[in-house]
Amino acid sequence: MKYPNGKKFDNKNVKEKKTTRGILNAGNRGMSFEADINQSNAYYNDNNVCLITKRPTPINIVKVDYSRGATITHAYFEKQSTTDYNGVYKNRYIDFEAKNTKNKTSFPLANIPPQQIDHLKRVIKHGGIAFFLIQFESLLKVYLIDASYVIHFYENGDRKSIPLEVIEGEGIEIEQGLNPRLDYIKAVEQKYFKK
Amino acid sequence: MKYPNGKKFDNKNVKEKKTTRGILNAGNRGMSFEADINQSNAYYNDNNVCLITKRPTPINIVKVDYSRGATITHAYFEKQSTTDYNGVYKNRYIDFEAKNTKNKTSFPLANIPPQQIDHLKRVIKHGGIAFFLIQFESLLKVYLIDASYVIHFYENGDRKSIPLEVIEGEGIEIEQGLNPRLDYIKAVEQKYFKK
Repeated sequence: MKYPNGKKFDNKNVKEKKTTRGILNAGNRGMSFEADINQSNAYYNDNNVCLITKRPTPINIVKVDYSRGATITHAYFEKQSTTDYNGVYKNRYIDFEAKNTKNKTSFPLANIPPQQIDHLKRVIKHGGIAFFLIQFESLLKVYLIDASYVIHFYENGDRKSIPLEVIEGEGIEIEQGLNPRLDYIKAVEQKYFKK
Repeated sequence: MKYPNGKKFDNKNVKEKKTTRGILNAGNRGMSFEADINQSNAYYNDNNVCLITKRPTPINIVKVDYSRGATITHAYFEKQSTTDYNGVYKNRYIDFEAKNTKNKTSFPLANIPPQQIDHLKRVIKHGGIAFFLIQFESLLKVYLIDASYVIHFYENGDRKSIPLEVIEGEGIEIEQGLNPRLDYIKAVEQKYFKK
């Protein structure tokens, strides 16, 4: 199995990368999920399927040392006020947030900050395609679920989480493989482009 | 003149902001241009015109001090591998780069890194709207020019810059005001939506 860059698939490298990233982030949770999405986006980009990129984490910079070639010496992580991913597929604007949960039976809505709900409502208003990719870590399953459905649950439901069976029924399970690891565009095609 | 947040327009504040940002960035050039675009995007967002956001500057984080609540103590600025702005307007994907020049007679193509040309070609391939906003700082003028035209110049031209008169002819001058400071969506409408 070879990757587009010609390198052999190497589990050891993947593991090392995950560990490094884990150190540099607030939590380790969902880091390999993020890596899987990024790998899938790189695959899609290389194969001209779509152009979807991860927004960099916003950093609040307090101090820069110019005597050391613009080295940042004091800064903080900021909360993303939007979603993590956006781009273009078949003329359409795509915008989504990836969420990981350890929960086995439902997706806790507390995982979604209000500003992301607001952002996704705006995406829908302007005619973009908006969804969540939700990974159930313990079940090794990933689902695409339309943002408008999640927003409805978020704003009108009495529950604090979306049950797994609702996600199974309303969402589309993402096919997992080596390349792309998460073929989520197949689910986008099925959900938003097949009439 | 009041801003959507209810605050009065205050030149002093704007100047202070510019200075602060200048310190934190590699160069001071074009900083108020960026502030003007961000203000326009906030106005468009508040008025439900479109949803266009600036991608955060990517930061390469070397060291985080967790004893001080996840304080970044060593990091570097990274080059944006895409463009600075993207979003959605009237169902269409929008992607653009803002460039400032002190030059009075032409826009030097050396201002555009190759990876931005590559990125914009991909945007066009997938059906997105791609353009540059070019500010001629000394002339106090800003133009929208279609990315495909700039790419053509970049790849086929013998010249190292696009003459101002070409930009005047091929591009659309952006109306400037207080709110939005740069009404570039009007030019987008004219260029890409009026048949």
